[in-house]
Amino acid sequence: MIAATPNPPYYAVIFSSVRTEFEEGYAETAEEMVRLAEEQEGYLGYESVRDGLGITVSYWASLDAIRNWKQQTDHQVAQKLGRANWYAAYKTRICKVERDYEFFESEK
Amino acid sequence: MIAATPNPPYYAVIFSSVRTEFEEGYAETAEEMVRLAEEQEGYLGYESVRDGLGITVSYWASLDAIRNWKQQTDHQVAQKLGRANWYAAYKTRICKVERDYEFFESEK
Repeated sequence: MIAATPNPPYYAVIFSSVRTEFEEGYAETAEEMVRLAEEQEGYLGYESVRDGLGITVSYWASLDAIRNWKQQTDHQVAQKLGRANWYAAYKTRICKVERDYEFFESEK
Repeated sequence: MIAATPNPPYYAVIFSSVRTEFEEGYAETAEEMVRLAEEQEGYLGYESVRDGLGITVSYWASLDAIRNWKQQTDHQVAQKLGRANWYAAYKTRICKVERDYEFFESEK
């Protein structure tokens, strides 16, 4: 569930969104986008949660990898459908991960 | 719900976590930490969702602001309690937000 990313630096795309009530096609498309992202060069993993607000963070090896994914043909169609149907609002933030640290209960 | 952050560059702390089943003190402490973070210099906003996995992203004006918050006394106590009681695992990623863009339904 917590993405196993390599040592920094790497990149993160934070996608924060609020959905409309329109459901048709959303779940299938979201699932297909995860499948396609996993095939992209430079894809490192993702984490996603929704409870009213949705936060999806995808991790990438480079800004080029993020740009290629943004321009991937099926993803472009999904983005357009997202704006037309599924999202009331969203904000996308492109970030460079400079440092990270983690904790696992087994370390106690 | 989606944080109204200024134009980049600014900083983000992505805190991805899995909780234990231990509830005592968690909600009150989480609420108090939000209140204290809001008082910190350089605090810009936050977004938080949990549904099994939890993702909380806080936004900051500088790395110094993030460092000061990490070292804030009450926050240090909360971090220690978090590792001892409330979290099975977490990963914290310190990021520089280089670019962002947004969409609101009213733009259609």
